[in-house]
Amino acid sequence: MFFVKKVAILGTGLLGASLARALKSRSLAEKVSGWSRSAATRQKCARLSDVFDCVCETPSEAVRNADLAVMCVPTANIPDLSREVASDLMKGAVLTDVGSVKSGICAECEKAMSALPASFVGSHPMAGSEKIGPDFSDANLFDGRPCFVTPIESTPDAAGKFVKSMWEAVGMRVYMVSPDIHDSIVAHVSDLPHLLAGTLCINASKFDCADLRKYAGPGFKDTTRVASGSPEMWDSIVFDNRAEILKALRDYSRDLSRLISSIENFDKADIARRLRSAKAYRDSIK
Amino acid sequence: MFFVKKVAILGTGLLGASLARALKSRSLAEKVSGWSRSAATRQKCARLSDVFDCVCETPSEAVRNADLAVMCVPTANIPDLSREVASDLMKGAVLTDVGSVKSGICAECEKAMSALPASFVGSHPMAGSEKIGPDFSDANLFDGRPCFVTPIESTPDAAGKFVKSMWEAVGMRVYMVSPDIHDSIVAHVSDLPHLLAGTLCINASKFDCADLRKYAGPGFKDTTRVASGSPEMWDSIVFDNRAEILKALRDYSRDLSRLISSIENFDKADIARRLRSAKAYRDSIK
Repeated sequence: MFFVKKVAILGTGLLGASLARALKSRSLAEKVSGWSRSAATRQKCARLSDVFDCVCETPSEAVRNADLAVMCVPTANIPDLSREVASDLMKGAVLTDVGSVKSGICAECEKAMSALPASFVGSHPMAGSEKIGPDFSDANLFDGRPCFVTPIESTPDAAGKFVKSMWEAVGMRVYMVSPDIHDSIVAHVSDLPHLLAGTLCINASKFDCADLRKYAGPGFKDTTRVASGSPEMWDSIVFDNRAEILKALRDYSRDLSRLISSIENFDKADIARRLRSAKAYRDSIK
Repeated sequence: MFFVKKVAILGTGLLGASLARALKSRSLAEKVSGWSRSAATRQKCARLSDVFDCVCETPSEAVRNADLAVMCVPTANIPDLSREVASDLMKGAVLTDVGSVKSGICAECEKAMSALPASFVGSHPMAGSEKIGPDFSDANLFDGRPCFVTPIESTPDAAGKFVKSMWEAVGMRVYMVSPDIHDSIVAHVSDLPHLLAGTLCINASKFDCADLRKYAGPGFKDTTRVASGSPEMWDSIVFDNRAEILKALRDYSRDLSRLISSIENFDKADIARRLRSAKAYRDSIK
């Protein structure tokens, strides 16, 4: 079971505020402090008195005496934020984040903490929504969703387990993998689908015989749904996880070329095999 | 409004039996006859006495005195079936089909009818389900779904309008386009998503650092959902609509190469533009 005296949520958007809600509603933390860069968001959070015990003006103030601090800010801001709060963390405290890429972040945050008596362990809870801001926060956002915890060699074992138990306590299925393997997994299950869906939209938008949107059924809609995701978030992900994304895209592109060749060559056996392998794989996903 | 004395349903699987149900439940036809190649299916249909007024042993018998005959058989069997029933159609009758590709079918069926006093007009109702057989037939299967009706130059105007009014009467949004444009539209909104989703599954199945299925969230699942479609049906579609599918795949492949180049070249402006165009396009689909 997970129970701590104080958790600090740094960045109280949809994800941070939902985590605060999940912790308080399940009585997993005695106190939850929050900080947001935006004064408007801080005001909103101050009104959520059942969610945040205190809303602070600075991240340093929010992490004071916290057993755990969770950085729920955009990926690009995580390393700076870790450097800002590192020396304010109490002895034995654990700092984690929710960034969707891990290699770079884990290296930088780990460095920020070196020689300090607190630890950093990366996390990537795969939960979210198209909605943004604390107004849409949901105590059940994490229920049943996967989460990565990405310790590196120098991470104390106890710190990894502590962060894992927190995400499990809010309902997540936690996987411990290295930051590198995390980035490769995410490139395949999240980044690649996003970029392929977007490319399908761009391809469809160029079609000049008709407005294809009129004819789009559930198949086209489902296949492209993720392309509606926040471009601001994806601007950052594409270059944060660039190396793994390029590998996945090039590999996919080769698979596509093989498919095209088989259709060109009337290779019915290969097409039949591909259709059946794809269906078997998809059907086996729960 | 659409009302006729007799409609013949040739092929009483899920789609054919659903059409029979839709016609009878809305009182659009006084009588509906059915024929299936399979004796077991004919027996099932004979038990659906509120759906089929008679179930025939041969397609020729089923179309006798019918104002409209609808071929709901696999794409590959449509031209042969049209030749089999052509001379049994009464004067002024209209023959249509539900095949998902149209250029080849329309040319062959039109030829089968030439010099006869009945007409052929192609249709492609975009409705269906993973389920098969008349047991799952549903009078509302067509509700709000798009349908193509594809007359050619020699098609009598009245025949096209007649078929259009039938599909509208069972709830479909009908688009009249040429068989060629139909095939190109379908290659883009249906075939391309299917093949890309399947390729994404094949790509994921080769990943050797982890079993990606454990990590697949709603994004991956939605993007690949259509890959679960019937391989038997797709074996046929891929080669029936081969020319248009190849065009669409090659065009998509070029778009993908451009995306890869932009990521390789750190072209953040191009990536930002792509993410925003894709989102705007997807958001504009109702």
